[in-house]
Formats: sequence, structure tokens, C-alpha cells
Amino acid sequence: MTTHRLTTKVKNSKLLEKEEERRDLGFGTRLTNDSGRLINTDGTFNARRINVSFWAWLDIFHRLTVLSWPRFFLVVFLIYFVVNCFFSLLYMLIGVEHLQGIQATGTMEQFWGAFFFSAQTLTTVGYGHVAPVGLMVSALSSIESLVGVLGFAIASGLVYGRFSRPIPKILFSRNAIFAPYLDINGWMFRMINESPTELVDVRVDVSLSRLETLANGQRSRRYYPLKLERSQVNFFPLSWTLVHPITETSPLYGATEESMAESDTEFLVYVRAIEETFLQPVHARYSFRYEEIVWGAKFSPMFDSGKTEEIVRVDVQKIHDFEPKTLN
Amino acid sequence: MTTHRLTTKVKNSKLLEKEEERRDLGFGTRLTNDSGRLINTDGTFNARRINVSFWAWLDIFHRLTVLSWPRFFLVVFLIYFVVNCFFSLLYMLIGVEHLQGIQATGTMEQFWGAFFFSAQTLTTVGYGHVAPVGLMVSALSSIESLVGVLGFAIASGLVYGRFSRPIPKILFSRNAIFAPYLDINGWMFRMINESPTELVDVRVDVSLSRLETLANGQRSRRYYPLKLERSQVNFFPLSWTLVHPITETSPLYGATEESMAESDTEFLVYVRAIEETFLQPVHARYSFRYEEIVWGAKFSPMFDSGKTEEIVRVDVQKIHDFEPKTLN
Amino acid sequence: MTTHRLTTKVKNSKLLEKEEERRDLGFGTRLTNDSGRLINTDGTFNARRINVSFWAWLDIFHRLTVLSWPRFFLVVFLIYFVVNCFFSLLYMLIGVEHLQGIQATGTMEQFWGAFFFSAQTLTTVGYGHVAPVGLMVSALSSIESLVGVLGFAIASGLVYGRFSRPIPKILFSRNAIFAPYLDINGWMFRMINESPTELVDVRVDVSLSRLETLANGQRSRRYYPLKLERSQVNFFPLSWTLVHPITETSPLYGATEESMAESDTEFLVYVRAIEETFLQPVHARYSFRYEEIVWGAKFSPMFDSGKTEEIVRVDVQKIHDFEPKTLN
Amino acid sequence: MTTHRLTTKVKNSKLLEKEEERRDLGFGTRLTNDSGRLINTDGTFNARRINVSFWAWLDIFHRLTVLSWPRFFLVVFLIYFVVNCFFSLLYMLIGVEHLQGIQATGTMEQFWGAFFFSAQTLTTVGYGHVAPVGLMVSALSSIESLVGVLGFAIASGLVYGRFSRPIPKILFSRNAIFAPYLDINGWMFRMINESPTELVDVRVDVSLSRLETLANGQRSRRYYPLKLERSQVNFFPLSWTLVHPITETSPLYGATEESMAESDTEFLVYVRAIEETFLQPVHARYSFRYEEIVWGAKFSPMFDSGKTEEIVRVDVQKIHDFEPKTLN
Repeated sequence: MTTHRLTTKVKNSKLLEKEEERRDLGFGTRLTNDSGRLINTDGTFNARRINVSFWAWLDIFHRLTVLSWPRFFLVVFLIYFVVNCFFSLLYMLIGVEHLQGIQATGTMEQFWGAFFFSAQTLTTVGYGHVAPVGLMVSALSSIESLVGVLGFAIASGLVYGRFSRPIPKILFSRNAIFAPYLDINGWMFRMINESPTELVDVRVDVSLSRLETLANGQRSRRYYPLKLERSQVNFFPLSWTLVHPITETSPLYGATEESMAESDTEFLVYVRAIEETFLQPVHARYSFRYEEIVWGAKFSPMFDSGKTEEIVRVDVQKIHDFEPKTLN
Repeated sequence: MTTHRLTTKVKNSKLLEKEEERRDLGFGTRLTNDSGRLINTDGTFNARRINVSFWAWLDIFHRLTVLSWPRFFLVVFLIYFVVNCFFSLLYMLIGVEHLQGIQATGTMEQFWGAFFFSAQTLTTVGYGHVAPVGLMVSALSSIESLVGVLGFAIASGLVYGRFSRPIPKILFSRNAIFAPYLDINGWMFRMINESPTELVDVRVDVSLSRLETLANGQRSRRYYPLKLERSQVNFFPLSWTLVHPITETSPLYGATEESMAESDTEFLVYVRAIEETFLQPVHARYSFRYEEIVWGAKFSPMFDSGKTEEIVRVDVQKIHDFEPKTLN
Repeated sequence: MTTHRLTTKVKNSKLLEKEEERRDLGFGTRLTNDSGRLINTDGTFNARRINVSFWAWLDIFHRLTVLSWPRFFLVVFLIYFVVNCFFSLLYMLIGVEHLQGIQATGTMEQFWGAFFFSAQTLTTVGYGHVAPVGLMVSALSSIESLVGVLGFAIASGLVYGRFSRPIPKILFSRNAIFAPYLDINGWMFRMINESPTELVDVRVDVSLSRLETLANGQRSRRYYPLKLERSQVNFFPLSWTLVHPITETSPLYGATEESMAESDTEFLVYVRAIEETFLQPVHARYSFRYEEIVWGAKFSPMFDSGKTEEIVRVDVQKIHDFEPKTLN
Repeated sequence: MTTHRLTTKVKNSKLLEKEEERRDLGFGTRLTNDSGRLINTDGTFNARRINVSFWAWLDIFHRLTVLSWPRFFLVVFLIYFVVNCFFSLLYMLIGVEHLQGIQATGTMEQFWGAFFFSAQTLTTVGYGHVAPVGLMVSALSSIESLVGVLGFAIASGLVYGRFSRPIPKILFSRNAIFAPYLDINGWMFRMINESPTELVDVRVDVSLSRLETLANGQRSRRYYPLKLERSQVNFFPLSWTLVHPITETSPLYGATEESMAESDTEFLVYVRAIEETFLQPVHARYSFRYEEIVWGAKFSPMFDSGKTEEIVRVDVQKIHDFEPKTLN
């Protein structure tokens, strides 16, 4: 065992100070492949963890929760079918003659007789025109009904979990724009809550991610927080235009369309809010890549002026609309 | 492609500084229609988002959760009826003679026979005096029982979600008042928790919203936080009178009944708390418009002095009571 | 309409400054009745809100959630009995002869026949030896099975809500003590988590509540936060002794047994933590009144020294033990 | 009653100041037994609370929630079996002749007949080939079906609770390492989320725990927070290497392998995050003891370079890999 001692000649590491100032969202500096985006427009990350252990991979609850509804019902139906097949084979092994009420001679007829008895047992319908006779079949059917009750308990839980899961339906404008803002310019996008559930206490973080060339010539991914004119609101009943004013301290100051393309610039948007039906937190992510930024535009109003009632109306479909406007 | 570069002649934008100081609750500055309120007294927003996509509009879980109980049961009953009709028509298509136990001749009789068999299958009662015979009907009834089990799983989840949903029952005084407070005056309202569930860690935000005329003659809606003498309490077993002291720094300083009416003044109240049965967060909103403010009054005590027991009693119904009192 | 204007002669209200410094937990200053405590030892408040509206009072979900288990099952059983009685009376009204399988002549016999048929329908057992015949009875029984399925959905939800409700099992020492602490004295109590579920991120607030006589001779209840040597810990696997060091700035400095009795002193303890099974927040409240404070003592160790294994053992039952010790 | 008065000669307690600076995670200073660890590698605490009251010990919901799946199903099956035995004995007491449909003569035959009838009643299958006759047996079976419905409600709740429980699947590197870091050295470990559910808003606290010898020769356990180069990230799609830079202010500065062994050094890791399926909080704990620290190494890259697709791939199994590297 060599005797190590934790001392260094360096007293005040300048590199450490720099490193601590560096912002990292969790993607690290090495994602320098400039052909893909970090966050997809559906909010998922453009990264995959491979070689995970079997049990971690098979996170049934998670998988069945995030599945689309048609697939979910298909999976439930398939499991129902397979479990019934399994039990009907067991009943046939013991002997279908112990299922009083089945007058079947052919094997297929016997199978389907056992299959439907199994289905009636699993769902606890139990009509009784077919009924178990004898110890073995009675025992098996009493186990099957237990399996059924527990299985549908799981299905119920899953259905409820899927239904009550907090998924915000936030619509982001298709493009972010560089627009004149007050007496300077601003980088802007807007968003609206499409769901009938109100969102409250909405907070938005926007980060800029781009590749930079270090002193040693290496390409490294850097992240910068973008200061927003207003980054949180209490209520979110209408649309909300988020503005990053381009002042001299902005990391975008002096940028051009070419420099943004060259540095693979991506704007990462992270929204946190509370939905008001169950007061659960909801998160949404979005990203704008340099190709999705429009230079010199302003967003068109979304108010629906056609009606003259007291209530304020906002037209959700106008969220993407903008018109050209010369920058300051 | 025109080469844009993000630079401006303006070095320090005064307008930006001003804009950043402006408070916005999320309603924006353009709601200058002075004939309606921003927040209704039931806490909903006086705004509507139209033209939402079909799937966002049809947020079944949300809709069935916020429906009133009678309507909810009506919807469940209707769905039950319709699904039974659907399946009984299918049974009739295959042939009611495969439902052993139905001695029906007329079409209506056959329909009702199939209907009640369907109901017994869907709810998994399955008496069995009517029972499926043959592959087609057996298969259909085994599918129906699966539909029933899953459907009632959804219904169960909805019922539980409705029941356990955190809805505070906070009663606000019908009027806010301008009352003498210490050696100055205060704007006050009071509230009490009507529910048997205790609320703890209660925080209250009050904002003032009013129309102001800008330098360019345009009307713009402005928001001001109102500083409260005390904006949070740990426990909320009794009533709580919230006081905004009218000092020289208050946005209300110098206001008159006429100026408040002219500027369409509205006080927006936002309450956040924790309910103690499940320690879930609860939110409540309320608003007082200028017509609901009483000038020169004080709230009457709510203690129930009739009893001489050790326990403190507060009479919830007295929450609205006040008596005239000259302002300082 | 008299024209009010919100101005006062007072420019800087000294009274306001004082009032803003006053601490209030939510009980207010008027609870000057010195014969009762503010917080009972089971954590409930010693206050009652009367005259609440019927629907707020009848908060069924809350009531059935906080009921003791025996009472809860009794309520469920009674509802089951009453609903069955109701439906069996309806069946009798239509005519028991439509319930094929019942060979009953006496009214009582008919009633019980209908009653058990109803029970089999409500729970969806549906043996079928008694089965509905005819439109009216079939319709009624199909409604009853719907009622049953929904009713047991509610019961399931309630049972789950009761089970999963976050209730900490924190055991507080029966007495708080004044003990020598370092080179001064301290007010101390200790607590331990009795549940097998670990608590983490535990925060404790202690406030002193006492009656004080104002300049005008009125008695007023005042609240003081007590500074703790340590008010939060990350983990809580062992017992935790909370210490308020009695320095010159403590509101207890100079207090005597007589002054504490005279001022009806009560120590209010508020514990917030996270339980680790479901990572839900849990709250606990406790209070020590002046009679429950021991002067000159120290808590006895709780480690179980009898065993010499590697694992640390703490004897929960020793939480209340202390031994006399002279104060500094 | 001796008159105590809370005053001390000590005006400014230096000991108090020191004590307030001391960090305590909740384990206290007395755990000086240097043969065991504080936190086990599965995250549990190496401590046990004994002598808890019966009801606190018997926290059924907690126990059935944290049980492994095979044991959970075994427990459910056993309860099912025992409850059926209990009811079948009651049916036999009343008389099996009241269960129409059982043609049994031997006692064992009668028992199994009653047993399977009970199972059909409890799960509400209710085939009906065996059916209750007479008041006593009908009443008992209607009670049993109620018990069944409520019992399976509890089971459903438990199954859902187990499924939806937030358990992070974070894989920690088997060893922590002392590695060269910038121009100094660092203590490092790394971790990755193995679950398909994304974790966001991840915060990590690392504390150092070691035994120190006080001035009076007593051994006392001390805790130090370790400053991390970066202690939180917004997103966690890839692996994350946590670094404590060993500067002159680090409690590790000057430490050697021998001093770490002698002082029973343990690094306590506490991870808090939000899982994104249900936006629930998740916690993970881990600990590295001095034997698990490697001196002079660096972690090997985890990127899977074999593929050239746009998506970033990280190989989870490489989390433990490191290679030797001389310290600065």
C-alpha cells in the first residue's frame, strides 16, 4: 500500500473557479455531435441508456403507464387471452368432465368450453351453467378467481394511474423569433395551455446550448441561462410570450444566423407549473434549434375580437402566427 | 439570406428596466375592458381559450372529475345504458337463441332479455339463469365481462379521484372594508376554513389590479402587490383577518371611491395552504371588485360567547358581519 | 355617497412597525382564557368552528377517512344493511313472485328472500339460484348491481385512502425539562419515530405562547419563536433531543415556575418531515404546558447496551426517562 | 416547590457557538463503534428501534408495501386460504345441508364443499351450482361477500400502492476514487439512472463522517458537508460524475489511507430527485466506506462509440469501470 496524502502544490486553483462557474444542465460538455438536438420537440431527451439490467429495463408499471391507450388495451386483452388459455389447458389436463355443464366431445370444443369457463371465473362473472366439480378443478378455479381479482386490481390501478397522470397540454409556438422589443431586440416564443385544467404558479427556465471551440482547439458544449424579462406568473389563463431581451450581457449579443448555425445553437425550454384539478406539479420541455428561429418578426395577437361579450377569448390556433417586422 | 447581427445602438435600455419592474400575474396589460372582473367569486378566471384541438378539449378525466355529483352519476348511468344497448344488439345479431334461458318471442322481449343478460355480464353479477351457449355468444360475453371489469375500474378511479380531490372550503367575507387600523387605516377582508379538515401553513397573496392611462393616452392594466401586515400563519383554526395597512407607500394611498370605480379596481386574493387529512396542497382564489368594498367599517367579533366551556368557539356564519366605524 | 380619500395624518406608524414584528401562529391574541391549552397532546387544536353550512359539515370523505377502523367497518356494514333493506322493499313492492327461486309465503320470509337476493346483486356474487324474471325486477336488479359496483368503488377508495394516509407515529417525551446544557441551561424535549417507515428531512419549529399584560392592563396572548440549537436533520433513525439554549436573548431568560404558571405558558411543537415509503410529507404537533416541564433534570440514555452486535439499538420505551440534575 | 429562575453567570457561551456550528445528519455523536457503517449500500440505516408499541410495530400497510412480490402474493394467498377455512368452518357449524348443491357425506368432503363455496362467495364468482338456503347460511354468505369485496379493495389498494411507489433505480459506481482533477485532485463517484423513467431536478448532498478524538480523549463522531463542484442538475439522461475538489479548505486535505481507516471515514450520499412519470419525489441514499475508495484512478468513458447514429448512447454496465491514474 503506497502512502498517499491528499495535498497539492496548487493553492488557489483558477481552473476550479472557472469550472464552478460553468453551467451544466446534465448533458455534459462532450455532446459535440452537431447533427442532432438535445431535447426533442416532444420533450424527450435525445439520449439512450443501454445495457440496463433486466429488472430495470422491465419496469412494467412505467411501461404500461406511458403506452398509448390503444396499445394498452391491446396488451390487457392479450394478457386476458393468454391467461385464459393457460387455465383452460390446466382444466383440460385435469379433465373437462369435471366441469359440469360442458357437453363437448371434440378437443377444440372442450378447449373452448374450458376457455369460457376460465373467462367467467377470471372476471368473476360466474354464470354457473358451467361449474367445477371435484377437488382438483374446484381448487384450480378458486385459485383462478383469486388471480382474476388481483389481476384486475392491477389493471384498475394502471387505468387510474394513466388517467390521473399529470401531463400538461402546453402548446408552444412552432418558431421562436427575434423581434423588436421596446427600444432594443428580444428573442421570443410564446405558449398557451390547451387543457381545460388551469395551470398556476408557472415557472420557465430557458437555456442556450452551443458548441464552442476551446483554447486547445477542442469543441465543447456550453450552456448559458437566458435572462427572461419575466420568468414566472401566478396564473396562466391566456397565452404567454416569453422574452429574452438582447442586451450587451446576453450570450446572444452579436450573434448572426451563420454563427448560430455553426455553433449548433439550441434553446432549451423547461416549464414547471401546478395543474389545478389535483394540484399536482406538471413539467414540460421544449427546444428550439437555430433553424426554427425567425429573424425580424412579431407575434400576431391571439384575442378573438369577433365577439363583444364580457369574457376574454383567446384563439389557441393562432399561437404560431407571426408577421414580419424589422429589427431595431 | 440577409445577414442579421444582434446588436443595437441602445446600451442601457431604460424601458427594459421599467418593464422588468412591472408586475404581471399572467393576465397581461391588455384586458382593459372595464365591464368584467378578472377572477370570478368562485375562483375561476374570466377568460376562455377557444379553438383548442379536439383531444385537448375532450379531457375526459378532467371533465368527469370536476362535474357535479348528480351529473356524474347521470353520465355513468347513461354510459351503462348505452353500453348495454350496444352489447344486447350484438347478442341479437348473433341470435338470442344462443342465450339459453331466455324464452322470448317478440323482438322487444328478446332485446330486454339480451339487455339484462348484458347488464349481468358487465357488472359481473352473472346470475346464470340466462347463460351463453355457443362460441360466438360465449366469446362476446367474455369480452363484455372484460370491458365491464375495466370500465368499472375507470369508474372506481374517477370516484376516488373526485372524493380525494383537494378542494378547500374557505369562506371569504362578502365585503372587503376600509377600516381604522392602529393609528392609520387598513384595507381588510377576513376568511375562515369551513371544512372539518384543518388547513396549515396558509399563505395569502393579495394584488391590486387597475386600469391606468399611459403617457400616450392608452389604457393599460397594472398590477400591484399589496403588502399585508401578516401574509402567512402556521395554523388556521379560527378566522383570519387580512390587513393591508394604507401607508404612504401603498398603491391605494390617496385613492377615493370615484378613482377606484374609474380605474376598475379589483383586489385579487390567492390563498395557498396544506390540508391536513392527506397533507395535500390546496389553493383558493377570490376577488373583491371596487363595488364590494365598504368604506368606514370594522368586522364584528365571531367568537361565540354564549358558552363558557374551555374550548374556543367561532361562529362561521358571522364572517360577513361588520359595523360602521369612522376612518382615521 | 360621502367622498372618502385614503390619507392619514400619521406618516410613519410606530404601532404598525410593532405589529408587523409580532408573531402570530394563527391563534390570534384574544385567547386569554388561561384554563385550556391551545394544542392538545394528540395534535388537534383546542378550538371549534360552529354554524358551518350543511355541506361543509357533511364532508363525508374526510369523516370516513379519519374514523377509527372499527367504526369505519360498522358504518360500511350499516350502509350495506340499509341499502339491502331498501332494495328488498322495492322488490317486494314489485312482487317477490318475480324473483324466481324464492318459495316464500310469509311476509318475513319474502323479505329475507328479497334481502339476500339484493345482497347477492349488490356484491355481484349473483349465485343465480334466485334470479330476476320480468322487466321491472330485471331492470331494478341491473340498477342495483350498478349501485353495488360504484358503491364498492367508493368503499375501495376510502379503504385505500385510510391505509395510505400519511400519519407519523412520533413519540414525544412526556415531559420537557430544564436541564444543564454546556455551560448554560437549556429547555429540552426529545422525540423518536416509532414507525418502521423512516422519516427524513425532519424540521422542528417550537414556539412559546404566553399571556402578557399590556400597558393598558389588558391581557394579550403573545407568541415567541424559540431558537433551537439544531432545528432540522436529514435522517431520523434514532431519538432526537431538541434543545433551546437559555441565553440572555431567550424569551425564557429570567422566567420562574411561578411566572410560567401565571402567564399560562405553553410550548407549541410543530414537526414536518417526509416519510420514506411513499415520500409523502407528514406533520405532527405537540404541546407542553407549564405543568409538564421538569426543572433540573437530564434525559437518560436510550441506547440498548445489553447487546454487542454491530447494529445500533435504541429502546423506544425509554423516551420519557430522565434523572434529576442540578441546573447551572 | 423550589423557586428556580432561568439565569446563568455565563453571558456569551463559546461552547454554544461551537455546538451550533457542528453539523449533525441525525445520527448524533455517540456512534463511535468503528466496526459498522452508518448507511448500508441498500440505503437503509444501520440502526434499529426496539421496544416499539404493538400497533406501531404492526404497521400492516407499510409492511405489505415493502415486502418482495413473491412474499406479498404468498401472504395474500395465505390470508385467502385462512379466511376461506374460517368461513367454511362456520358453514359446517350451521350445517352443510343448508348449502344446496353439495352432495357430501364425509366430513372432509363437506369441508371442501363449504370451502369452495366460500371461495366463490369471497371472490364474488358465485357460480350458483352451490347456493345458500335458509336464513343463517344466507346471512353468513352475504356477510362473507361483503368481507370479500372490502378485502379485495384493500388488496387492490396495496397492489396499486406497491406499483406506483417511487423507487429510483440509481446505480452508483462500486468505488469512489481519488482522481486528478484539473490542476488539483478530487474525490469522485458517479451514478446513472437505470430506470426508463427520467429523473429531473436532481440534487446530491455528500457528507463525510469520521471519528475524532476530543481534547478530553473521548472519541466523537463528526460530520462535514463536502462541497461539490456541481451539486444539482436539471436533467439526468446520462451518467453524472460527482466531484469534491480537494482544496485546502476540504476536510479531506492532508488525509492519508491510514488516517481514513483509523477515523472510520464514511462518505454519506443523499440524492433527491423528481421522477417524470408521475412527477413524484424520489430519494436514494448510498455510502462509501474508506475501504471502497480507490487512490489514484480515473473513471473510464461510458459512451458507446460502436454506433454512429445521431442518438447518444451510454452503456450502463460501464459505471464501475476505472483505470489507474497518478494523482497530482
